[in-house]
This record gives sequence, C-alpha cells and structure tokens, in this order.
Amino acid sequence: MSAIRIAPSLLSADFARLGDEVRSVIEAGADLIHFDVMDNHYVPNLTIGPLVCQAIKPHATVPIDVHLMVKPVDALIPMFAQAGADIISFHPEASEHVDRTIQLIRSHGIKAGLVLNPATPLNVLDHVLDQLDLVLLMSVNPGFGGQSFIEGTLPKIEAVRRLIDRSGRDVWLEVDGGVKVDNAQRVGAAGADTLVAGSAVFNSASYAHAIAGIRDNARLGQRASNRMAGDGAT
Amino acid sequence: MSAIRIAPSLLSADFARLGDEVRSVIEAGADLIHFDVMDNHYVPNLTIGPLVCQAIKPHATVPIDVHLMVKPVDALIPMFAQAGADIISFHPEASEHVDRTIQLIRSHGIKAGLVLNPATPLNVLDHVLDQLDLVLLMSVNPGFGGQSFIEGTLPKIEAVRRLIDRSGRDVWLEVDGGVKVDNAQRVGAAGADTLVAGSAVFNSASYAHAIAGIRDNARLGQRASNRMAGDGAT
Amino acid sequence: MSAIRIAPSLLSADFARLGDEVRSVIEAGADLIHFDVMDNHYVPNLTIGPLVCQAIKPHATVPIDVHLMVKPVDALIPMFAQAGADIISFHPEASEHVDRTIQLIRSHGIKAGLVLNPATPLNVLDHVLDQLDLVLLMSVNPGFGGQSFIEGTLPKIEAVRRLIDRSGRDVWLEVDGGVKVDNAQRVGAAGADTLVAGSAVFNSASYAHAIAGIRDNARLGQRASNRMAGDGAT
Amino acid sequence: MSAIRIAPSLLSADFARLGDEVRSVIEAGADLIHFDVMDNHYVPNLTIGPLVCQAIKPHATVPIDVHLMVKPVDALIPMFAQAGADIISFHPEASEHVDRTIQLIRSHGIKAGLVLNPATPLNVLDHVLDQLDLVLLMSVNPGFGGQSFIEGTLPKIEAVRRLIDRSGRDVWLEVDGGVKVDNAQRVGAAGADTLVAGSAVFNSASYAHAIAGIRDNARLGQRASNRMAGDGAT
Amino acid sequence: MSAIRIAPSLLSADFARLGDEVRSVIEAGADLIHFDVMDNHYVPNLTIGPLVCQAIKPHATVPIDVHLMVKPVDALIPMFAQAGADIISFHPEASEHVDRTIQLIRSHGIKAGLVLNPATPLNVLDHVLDQLDLVLLMSVNPGFGGQSFIEGTLPKIEAVRRLIDRSGRDVWLEVDGGVKVDNAQRVGAAGADTLVAGSAVFNSASYAHAIAGIRDNARLGQRASNRMAGDGAT
Amino acid sequence: MSAIRIAPSLLSADFARLGDEVRSVIEAGADLIHFDVMDNHYVPNLTIGPLVCQAIKPHATVPIDVHLMVKPVDALIPMFAQAGADIISFHPEASEHVDRTIQLIRSHGIKAGLVLNPATPLNVLDHVLDQLDLVLLMSVNPGFGGQSFIEGTLPKIEAVRRLIDRSGRDVWLEVDGGVKVDNAQRVGAAGADTLVAGSAVFNSASYAHAIAGIRDNARLGQRASNRMAGDGAT
Repeated sequence: MSAIRIAPSLLSADFARLGDEVRSVIEAGADLIHFDVMDNHYVPNLTIGPLVCQAIKPHATVPIDVHLMVKPVDALIPMFAQAGADIISFHPEASEHVDRTIQLIRSHGIKAGLVLNPATPLNVLDHVLDQLDLVLLMSVNPGFGGQSFIEGTLPKIEAVRRLIDRSGRDVWLEVDGGVKVDNAQRVGAAGADTLVAGSAVFNSASYAHAIAGIRDNARLGQRASNRMAGDGAT
Repeated sequence: MSAIRIAPSLLSADFARLGDEVRSVIEAGADLIHFDVMDNHYVPNLTIGPLVCQAIKPHATVPIDVHLMVKPVDALIPMFAQAGADIISFHPEASEHVDRTIQLIRSHGIKAGLVLNPATPLNVLDHVLDQLDLVLLMSVNPGFGGQSFIEGTLPKIEAVRRLIDRSGRDVWLEVDGGVKVDNAQRVGAAGADTLVAGSAVFNSASYAHAIAGIRDNARLGQRASNRMAGDGAT
Repeated sequence: MSAIRIAPSLLSADFARLGDEVRSVIEAGADLIHFDVMDNHYVPNLTIGPLVCQAIKPHATVPIDVHLMVKPVDALIPMFAQAGADIISFHPEASEHVDRTIQLIRSHGIKAGLVLNPATPLNVLDHVLDQLDLVLLMSVNPGFGGQSFIEGTLPKIEAVRRLIDRSGRDVWLEVDGGVKVDNAQRVGAAGADTLVAGSAVFNSASYAHAIAGIRDNARLGQRASNRMAGDGAT
Repeated sequence: MSAIRIAPSLLSADFARLGDEVRSVIEAGADLIHFDVMDNHYVPNLTIGPLVCQAIKPHATVPIDVHLMVKPVDALIPMFAQAGADIISFHPEASEHVDRTIQLIRSHGIKAGLVLNPATPLNVLDHVLDQLDLVLLMSVNPGFGGQSFIEGTLPKIEAVRRLIDRSGRDVWLEVDGGVKVDNAQRVGAAGADTLVAGSAVFNSASYAHAIAGIRDNARLGQRASNRMAGDGAT
Repeated sequence: MSAIRIAPSLLSADFARLGDEVRSVIEAGADLIHFDVMDNHYVPNLTIGPLVCQAIKPHATVPIDVHLMVKPVDALIPMFAQAGADIISFHPEASEHVDRTIQLIRSHGIKAGLVLNPATPLNVLDHVLDQLDLVLLMSVNPGFGGQSFIEGTLPKIEAVRRLIDRSGRDVWLEVDGGVKVDNAQRVGAAGADTLVAGSAVFNSASYAHAIAGIRDNARLGQRASNRMAGDGAT
Repeated sequence: MSAIRIAPSLLSADFARLGDEVRSVIEAGADLIHFDVMDNHYVPNLTIGPLVCQAIKPHATVPIDVHLMVKPVDALIPMFAQAGADIISFHPEASEHVDRTIQLIRSHGIKAGLVLNPATPLNVLDHVLDQLDLVLLMSVNPGFGGQSFIEGTLPKIEAVRRLIDRSGRDVWLEVDGGVKVDNAQRVGAAGADTLVAGSAVFNSASYAHAIAGIRDNARLGQRASNRMAGDGAT
C-alpha cells in the first residue's frame, strides 16, 4: 500500500506572497508543491512560468510538481529544469513526439509524468508507461474555471491503477481537479495516491486541517479498497 | 515639458514576495508598475498572467502597466481588465485587427498602448496614433535574455516624439529594455517620458536611489533637449 | 427497435432558396435538417455558418442538426446556439478539450454529438459516450468531393451500435457520406438509426420518394438485423 | 470623374432566399453584389463560401464582388473562380506572397483587389498597385458586429485616391463598413467610387430608394470635391 | 515466410554525390532506397524534398521508399508522385484525414504506408490496415539526432506482426531507427521484414558486407521465430 | 563602383551530383553558391537543408549564400552555421523578432541578409539596414515554379541602391528570380551587384560562358548607370 501524497496547487494561493504560501503549506503537511503552467494556447488562460518556479525554489523543501498545460512543450522543459522543477508532467496531445519529450525530461534528472484529460483514452499509455514516474488524471478540464469533480474519473483511476500495478513499477497516480475532503475517500479508494488540492487547501481556515482531512479520507478509501482486494484475492 | 515616469518591471522582482516588492518600489517613487506577460509563443518564455495581476492589485497604489508579449492578444484583454490593469499595450504583429484590439482595450476603460519591436517600422502608427494613450518602443528584443540597450532606438524615439507632438495629443512615450542610470539622460533627451527599468531598480541596493537616479538623468536629458529645441525655435 | 431518422444535408440543396428547400424536405418527410459547416482549415472547403442557420430556423419545423467540420470548435458553439441549432456535433481532433466542448454544447440546452472520421479509432468514445446524444460516423472523408460510401464503415457501425446498446443510453447513431437508397438497408442492418442523405434526396425527382426509399430500406435492414439478434439471443 | 457604384452586401440579406434578394437589389439598381467570406480564423465568424456563390451566380446579372476575410487565401481562389466570382479581394496580412496571390486571381480572368483594415498602412500598396483593379478600404473592423463607420477612414480614402490618380490606372476605390445615406456624401467627397452597403439597403423599406439615396449623396460629394480640386488646379 | 528487405537511408549518405551512393547501395544489395523527408515543423530538422527524389530516380533501379516526416502531408504527395516515389509513408498525427491521405497516395499508383512513432498506440491501424501496403514502426524518435534503438519497439513489432498476419494481406512491416547488425536478429525475430539502416550501411567499410550482415541476422531471427511459432502451432 | 558577383542557385543543379556541380560552377567563375531552403510552410515546396549544406561545404571554395524560405527561421540558423553557411538571409515576415534574428545570425560570425518579396514594402529596412550585410530582392515569388522576372523589381532595386548608398555601409544588393543574360544589364544598371542565376547557368551548354555573359552584361549596366550618375553629379 503506497503512501498518500497531498499536493496543494498554487493556483489558489496568494500570488502576492508565494514564498510564504509555499512555506505555510509545507509546514501544514504538503508533500509536493503543485505548479500549474498555462500558456493561453493549450488552455484559455496564462498563469506562471519558470521565473516564478525559480523564485519559490528556495522556499520549497518538498518537490515542485510542474504541470505543463502548454503546447508545444519541449522548449519549456530545460527552463523548468534550471528553475528547480522536480517533476514535470505534460499532455500527450501537446507533443508530436511523446517518447522524446519524456526522454528530454528525464535527461535533466527530473521525474516525468503524462497527463490525461477527462476525455483522453488510456491507450496513450500503452508504449510509455514503463518510462513514466507519474500519471496525472484530470478530473476537470484544465484551464477552465468553475468546474466540479467529474465522477467519470473514478473508474478511470481504477483502470490506470490496474495498469500501474500490472507494470510492477512505482508510478505515482495523481488526480487533479475538484478534489476536496468530501470526495477524497472515493479518489483514494479508486487507487490514486497523489491528490492535488487547490481551493480546498488555500481557501480553508487551516491549511494543516485541510491537508490532514484530505489525506485521512484518501487513506481510508485506500485501505477499504485494499481490504476488498485482499478479500477477493484470498 | 511632460513629467518623467519611472515604471519598474516586475520581471526583475522577487516573485516569491511580489506584494512586498510592489509596495517597496511605489514607496521608492515608482509611477507605474510594469507587468510583462509572455506566452511562450510570441516570445520564447512564459511569465505571469491575470491571476498574478489580480493578486498585486491591492498592493498597487499606482497604475499597473501591462505589456502583452502574447499572440493572439484579444482573449487576454478582458481577463486583465477584470484583474485590475490600468494600461494594456500589445504588439501590432500579434493582432490581425489592430484597430479593433485598441477599441477592445478602451471599451474596458483602460488606456491602450502599441509596442514597437526594434525592427518594427513606424508606419504601424499611421492610422491609430489618434486612438492611443501610449507608444512603447522596445530597446531590446522582448523575451530574450542578456541583451543590452540597442543604440538605434534613440533616433526612433526622436521620430516618435515628433509624431506625437504633431498629433497634439497627450500620448506617453515609453521605452523598455536595458534602461539604466547611465543611458537615461540620452533616452530622456530623445523624447521618452516613461522609462521601464528592471534590474536597474530591483538589483540595486536602494530602489529609491535607483529610481531617482534614472528619473533625474532622464529629466536632465529632457531639459537639455527642450532648450536646444527652444533655441532652434527662436 | 429505434425509429429511423432521415436527415437531408443542405450541402446538396439550392443555396439560392434555402428556405424553400428546407420546407420542401420537411414536407417530404425529413426528420432533421443536416447542416454542414466547413471552415477551410479542418477541411478544404468553406460552406455556411451561423447567419445561414439563423435564416433557415423559421422554416425548420424539425431539429437542425449542425455538423461542425471546423477547428477549433469552441467559439462557434455559442453562435450556433443563438442561431437555433438543436444538435451540434464536432470532431474530437478539432478540440483539445473534448469533454469541455461537450459540456459547452449541453450548457446551451443543445444535444451534443461526436463525429468519427473513417480512420478515427473508437476509443475516442471511451470516456465521453455517457455524455453524448449522438455519434456520427463518417462514411466518406468530410470536405472532399466525389467520394463514394466506404464499405469499411459497416463493421464500424456495428461496433458503435454494440457500445451504445451496452451503455443503456438513448444515443443516436448517425451515418453521413454516400448514403443512398441502394445501401440504406446495409446501413440500417449495421445499426445506424439516423441517415444523412445529400444528393440522394436533393438531386432526386421527388424528395418524398427519395426519403421514403432510404427510410424503408434502412428499416428493412434494421428489422432483419434485429430478427437475427433475436434468434441469437434465444 | 468616375461613376459611383453601389455594392449591396449579402451579409444583411435574407440567407433563406438569396436568389430573390440578389435579383431584387439588382432591379433596385445595384452595380455589384458584395459577397463576404469569413472563415472563423482571419475573423471571428464564418459566413458563406463557393457553393453559395455558385448558387446565386445564375441570379446575378451584375458582377459578384467577393471579399475574402480568410487566411490563408490561395486555396479558395480557384474555387471562387469556378463558382463565378468576377472580382476577388483579399487582405495582405492573409498571404505570405501578396504578388503571387494577385497573379493567381488574374490568371483566372478575375479582377483583383487588396483590402486594407482600418489600421493597415498604405505602403502595402507600394509595389502592387499597378496590378490591382480595386482597393477596398475597411471603415469598420471586418468580422466584428455592431460597429459604426470609423471617421479616420476619410483621410485614408483621400490618400488612396491620390495614389490611384497618380498611377494613371483605372483602379476602383471601394469602401466597406457602416456606409449609409448619411455619410455617403463624405465618402464620395473623399474619393471613393464604390460603396458597400449592407443593412442600409437590406434593412430599408425600399431597396431602390436606399441605393439611390446612397448613390446620389456619394455623387454630390464627388462633384463638390472635383469642383474644389478644379478650383485649386486653376 | 516473407523475404527480408534492406532499405539504406540516404540520411547517412554523402549528399554531395547521391547518384553514386544510390547506385552503390543497390549494387551492394539494397532492396529499397529509404528517403527521409523532414520539414522543420513535424520534426526539428529539414532534409530533402521532391527535387532530390527526382534527381536520384534515374539512378534508382529499386523502389524509392519515401518517409514523410512533415505536417501537413497532402500537398507533398503529388509532388513526390511526379518525382518518382514508389512508396509513401506518413504519420497519422500529421493528417486530419488519414483515410483520405492513404487514398490520395494510392490514386497515384503508389504504395501507401503509415508510420507509428515510439509512443503512438496501435489502434491508429484499426480502420485503415486493410488499405495499407506498409506499416513503419519508428524505433527512435524521428528527426532527433544521437538516439539508439528503443527496446520497447520489439514487443510492438510483434503486436503489429500479429495484426498483419490476422489481416491476411501482404503488408510490409518496416522498422526504422538504430537498426544495426547487432540487433537485426531480434528485429527479424519480432516480425519485421523490412529494415531501414542508415549509418550501419553508409558508415561501414563495405556497403555489401553491412547489408548482408543485417539481412542475414534478420533472416536468422525470422527463421528462429517461425520455428518457435511452428512448434507452438503443432 | 562595386564588383559584380554571380551566385548560381543549386535549385537548378543536378542534385544527384551536387559536389561536382558546385566545383564546376566555381571553376566556371561563380562568386557564391546560392542555396535555396524551402520548408513547405513559408513556400509550397521543400528542398534541401543543413545536411546537404554540410555535404557540399568541402567542395565550396567560395562562400555559401543560404536563402531561408522557411517560417519560423530561428531554429535553423545554428544548424546552418554548423553546416558551413557563410551568409544567411531570411524574410522579415518569417520572424516575429527581425532584429533578434539578425543578431542571432551575426553571433555565429555569419553575414546576415534580409529578403524582400516582390510586394514587400521597403520600410522593413528602416531600423535594420545598419546591421545587414546583404539585401536580397526577389524578382519572382519564391517557391512557385514557372515564373519570369517581374519588371517592377527594377525601380525597387534602384530605391534600395539609394538607401544603401545613403547608409555609407558596404551592403550587397542581390537579386533573385528569372535573372538571365538578357536582363542582366538592366539589373546591373538598376544597382544590383549580386545576381542569382539558376537555369540560366545550369541549363546552359557552358557554365563559364553563361556566368561570364551575365556578369559582363551586369557590369555594362552598372557602368552606364554610374556614368549617368556621374554626369548628373558633375
């Protein structure tokens, strides 16, 4: 049973004092800092880039988990490598040469992830899962505001969980979009081990309380699911 | 003789504490906050977008002067309007419909500027100068690092100054790229009234000293130039 | 057993008197008006847009079934919603965010369809079939002239019919391209319930006769197929 | 003194009975049928293409004047040639090879025009005016709704009139956007000889009355202007 | 058991004397001339186009096997047809209309191939394998230098071999990227029958020796694999 | 009076033996080797890239004069620098940052040129002529076959000649497209000092004779023109 990781997304942080925000969520228990990069082309918004990553790096004592919502992707990878990214994930639709982009990320000593939009079929993983450190499933459409968790993500998480387990490799399974204390148990039960939370953390009264709440529920789900699987296996 | 305005560019600020930085440069005398938006398409970098603008707005008691280095531009304009931009400038190459983009900016009650790259000819101003609040001349190529002030900008500033004076309208003439205490006098003498300074301010020991140094030299240049013009006119 | 719907495509109508044409095919039994939108980017032709849709709306007492052969698609959806479209279908290759585009269509109270080109694999339906009202299978390549029905579409219709039946939802299965009286029986037998017909209707001597001929043959196919399935099931 | 030509734009016609509309405006005195093609890429709308042109051709006893608001342009030119276009105009920003596009239009025996957006400088005409049959000045931004005539177009018309007169060639000078009975005199006085009118014709009680009103006022302007020029010349 | 074909890639030849190189490798036993076309858009390099193909045609007594690493692809197909191409392969990501592109190639009497990048899933073949003459599997990422054979290609070759065998059609299975004497046996054993070799041939002391070495090893692999399959089948 | 340089274009050479062709034209008197790069995006053809340049470099004892008909341009510049290019010219429409592209070329120790299409206005030179080593005027539209010399190029050559002379710098003035023995005198008289000739050289019976014929006529024109200017100056 893998650990549960909580990755607060800076999208909901106060951009006027990001250093403070980063230190606060880490003190509150964050395992990763989730860093959402939008380029106003792949998604209809523009957020933050390598210079901002570089600025928060000294404050980040946990890995920085960069999610590139950009197209094309290759040119930004060396910039984020130099800016201190620890994980870089990208969308397969955003690169003509997905295998090459993964190799480019890894050539910088950075963990590589592939991100699947809600409608993206799983077979984009067929020939690259053995080179990935992370699969990120979007549970909302990236870059559009005001969305809630898409329930159809749950069976998709389960399907990817099976693929990862079958591979025998230690690939993280991250979920991003509308994750909250309420649904964390189901997300954990479906097989996710890394949960991105934005407003659920940064808009809460206590970051620590929010992170703990999400983590505990996800763990509950994970355990229940493992017990059932264990029962089934016996 | 118009006032000299100094616009520190956040590109050189500490992105981990932008609120502090904004307040500090304003206390140090900044007249505008220059906000550089890059989209990794029009220029080879990605910086900061509307959410960051919105976050610094409460800290900005002077106008926020947004420079869009993005292509296309129209979709970001309403977002920056809502985020508190006071001035929005764009590159004519980045819009198929330059007149329409200017009207779009103004429809939000925001001042509109046009930005000319070092190689852009002046006739892009021919049919729109009467609708502009600002002309921004790039004295480096936007989005590329490690460049110094292009000397050929000086006669270009003079030429635009003549166009503005001839128009009889109050159009600001801004210069961005490699402006420092050293060359501010020549920039002012050429006719610029608004000077963007990045590292010259944020990498200095004293923001106030740096801003004052640039402003004083620009004013010296402006006065000398006016005296000469006055002599010539007599 | 679902009803057979015939959707005459305006592409073959007389564009000089579209109102008449629309009324005539409806009187002749048309169940839908099929409206082909090409943008000269996704396909190598440009046809008709929202203004034309709006103009025929008062004449259309049956639903207008808009097929967007455009890329990107999102900006046209509100325009067609306002112009009176009842169904909007698009190609998954033409949207970076297929789930979001479906949600956008539905947010306007319009039925949403996904269109599969002859070579498009079926797994584009994997995570969105439960949100669709219609699947449209192209039996020619859209936007290119002078093509005849691609026979390989028949097993593809059968495969999609199985997916829809398994879903338990009422999703229409439409086929477009080279459908005629001759092949309607096979198309119906394969599982299509909505048949687009262009020249087969508008170039015929009697619209009513043509529509009836296609419908009758499709029904024959549908019944024969159901009988066989019924036999098999017993 | 050149004749005044009135070109009703089908954009404001009833698209459900275009054949009737075309015949009606011709009977009402139209000299040209103005045909606006938008592709949802160069401008944010999609209108009508070659098939519609072909359908109205038998009804059009005056030349069809096609304005391509599309990018890129070359592929549509042979299609419109075959569909019966008599004049094809395009935007210089929409072709990498403006001279070549003009030659392509002319190779089909069709008159070639260049269209200048409100902000487009006049020097795009420098090396091609001697190959053009028509210059079209936009007095609104093409493809955007709800705009009124841009007053800054008037001196631009005058400047192009001078270029054409200096060339000694018979190049038509067309103006499109917000032209009405009210401003036709000023448009004619500035030097335009071909006036596009959309809603001013199609939304009027009498097409004939509207066309005559625009034409008469344009002529008045033209004569007054010629008289002044004549006075000046003496 | 199908024959083994060796296709030396001109990418590693001396471009200053391509005619000689072509004749030399044919004399040395080449079955095909592999011709790599890169456009600096689909891949980050630009190589050779139709004019070069036409120039080597008189020297090529074996088929010219053109691999289009370009996007979009359709416009180049008639040019290469006229230049003497015998086989044209393209990437499905590079055409919006894969079925149509295959038909376009075949309409010129040329064999059609589809190329799968290392990460491309196999279902792109689902609806077109019955129209293909060749499937080309990339064992490196096309257009990037200094890569070695991706081992994950071997099970992918096996999977495509099964698809082809099941189809009952004579479709060649080609592999391109890092193929050398060393790995040819495994490539042949996996089921490839056509091997592209660049530096392994052109940088060798003897073209004939290199070609024979690759062919012999591929045959060994093929036989061993067939024997095992035969055993299994008994 | 500057020397006349003849630059045979490899587009008309035998691509099967480029090394021979290069040596032959140099022996026949060529001053430069003109190398036309087309990418099938900026122009509708694809020709030759850096690898071909590298292959002919050892045969080229005169400078290689690379004309990039590609968009965008920056990525190819380091590749051509490494491949031995001595001059690189590009089209201003193909770079968002013309000044930066010129600096990039020069940073590799290579001469930089700007290419003007037949319709391109001269003001693209306004702010960069002082950084250029060469201005290339196209006398046909690049990338399209079967064109003849556009006569309107002659006054354009004269205008650029005046700009160069006024600058006081040693900028070459090159003309490309349909240059032959017949029109070389007029081209030289207009002020060009560098003439690209393709078929006029490579399709001639004697390269040396063709090169000498073009050079002699261009010189005649140059002298006559200088004499007239001299007369005028006296």
